Amino acid sequence: MNEIVAIRPHDEHFAQLAKEAGATIAGDGDSPTGVFVPPFTGIQHLQELLAEHDTIEWVQLPLAGVDKFLHIIRQRTDIAFASAKGAYSKPVAQHGLALTLALLNDLHRRARASEWDSVQTGEMLYGKRVTILGGGGIAEEYARLIAPFGCEITVVRHAPAAVPGADRTVQTGEFASLLPTTDVLFLASALNDETRAIVNADALRALPGSAVVVNISRGPVIDTDALVAALAGHEIAGAGLDVTDPEPLPDGHPLWSEPRALITPHTADTVEQVTQLLGERFVDNIARRHRGADLAGVVDPARGY
Amino acid sequence: MNEIVAIRPHDEHFAQLAKEAGATIAGDGDSPTGVFVPPFTGIQHLQELLAEHDTIEWVQLPLAGVDKFLHIIRQRTDIAFASAKGAYSKPVAQHGLALTLALLNDLHRRARASEWDSVQTGEMLYGKRVTILGGGGIAEEYARLIAPFGCEITVVRHAPAAVPGADRTVQTGEFASLLPTTDVLFLASALNDETRAIVNADALRALPGSAVVVNISRGPVIDTDALVAALAGHEIAGAGLDVTDPEPLPDGHPLWSEPRALITPHTADTVEQVTQLLGERFVDNIARRHRGADLAGVVDPARGY
Repeated sequence: MNEIVAIRPHDEHFAQLAKEAGATIAGDGDSPTGVFVPPFTGIQHLQELLAEHDTIEWVQLPLAGVDKFLHIIRQRTDIAFASAKGAYSKPVAQHGLALTLALLNDLHRRARASEWDSVQTGEMLYGKRVTILGGGGIAEEYARLIAPFGCEITVVRHAPAAVPGADRTVQTGEFASLLPTTDVLFLASALNDETRAIVNADALRALPGSAVVVNISRGPVIDTDALVAALAGHEIAGAGLDVTDPEPLPDGHPLWSEPRALITPHTADTVEQVTQLLGERFVDNIARRHRGADLAGVVDPARGY
Repeated sequence: MNEIVAIRPHDEHFAQLAKEAGATIAGDGDSPTGVFVPPFTGIQHLQELLAEHDTIEWVQLPLAGVDKFLHIIRQRTDIAFASAKGAYSKPVAQHGLALTLALLNDLHRRARASEWDSVQTGEMLYGKRVTILGGGGIAEEYARLIAPFGCEITVVRHAPAAVPGADRTVQTGEFASLLPTTDVLFLASALNDETRAIVNADALRALPGSAVVVNISRGPVIDTDALVAALAGHEIAGAGLDVTDPEPLPDGHPLWSEPRALITPHTADTVEQVTQLLGERFVDNIARRHRGADLAGVVDPARGY
């Protein structure tokens, strides 16, 4: 069976990859069997294609976290929606470790200095108690990257299956009880009803004053106002955020001037990295279709990831 | 044999550790067999003790890099001088990784921002070619910490012995030839005639424009003026410096306003960490003396480390 893939808006790079993988790019009058959604595309192109054609069997989405597509995925359970989950784990986990170490070694404060301040600061990651929210590819890769530090790693996730590299894996109901013994809280979950604002004022108050929080998942996993208050009140030692709520973080927002915060503008995976890694995932999924195998990264409509 | 240890100036914390390890603290009229030099102490106390007593057989120095004590060590080859080499490897290697990832993920620039800048930046450490100058404890620990990234690690050192975790170990004469294929240059050597200003204008020019340089060893390993010029001229992508020349870096020095530089004020190991780890090394060396074993960290006067 030959795959006929619709790419809208047209993207020559991904069209070329699809052709090299043996697929045909759908032209006018063709009935596509698959859809590729290019990065940084709104949902309207996908909605149009789904309305125009009843031949579509699968969709390759460009994101690991597909919250903005979820209402479509839940309407069209006859179609397999493949996310990029797992594809961006390496750059995102690295960025998460970079933020973690920057907070522990006080690099955000040092970067802003313009004089030698001999007051010494710095905490070792070695042996720390690390709680990871989420059990996907990023969580697993982050656990792998910090393995040399001999941390005590607890993964908190929806599913009961153990995550490789974690000392223990528990379900989301246990999240709150873990916080008083958490030194590093690493947020790598999907955004859904279970995780929205799970890091609220109570959670932040439950963490030790020396704890740091890193978020590379979705901004609304944290209650931003509660975080601003917790940082200002020294309830936690620092926050490293690649995602915010609202996002983009507006000019003049208190987090921009909070000395304990380090914000990166959703750059854990860059356009260049996404283009490379998404291309590999897309080509792999075309090959899987050609040999009749299950797609990589199929989204569970109920869980939302 | 009972060790009689002189500690000058007196330091109650380390005196207590010595007593618990079975040593006697030298009082007036005692003839010390050993000397403990407390952290952040000038050389004059040690010089006085060596002039006052001809019974001293060993000295515990508080530093891993003993360049400032080297003229004494070379004069008094009848005495075993133990440095703290290896004792601080963990915090210093962690700090080195923190600086490395901060440069690659552009955290120094992001930390200084006060608005959402959607221009994406970020480089993966995965698979990069990492050149480590120095083959001591910090080099080995840094290689261990970056192992999950699958880098191609070359250690450049004085001695020919291979360093665990390195893909290859070469001698210092090969340093210059490695630079054109170096993505991350990590400086972890002792300061001596071989390494002083080894990172000069020619070396910086030989590095790829995308390379980053991290120095956690001693400031004069880099020619500072050449580094300022290389950063301003975009000859390299960034520099993370925990040590500088001059040190402390004076107010108004061009490195303070260089956007590609990230400076930490010699805080790779903090007072708290040094106190803990040096105490462990000191206690271990008293135990070694008691059982007649070789001291840990004995300095080779010729090599200077």
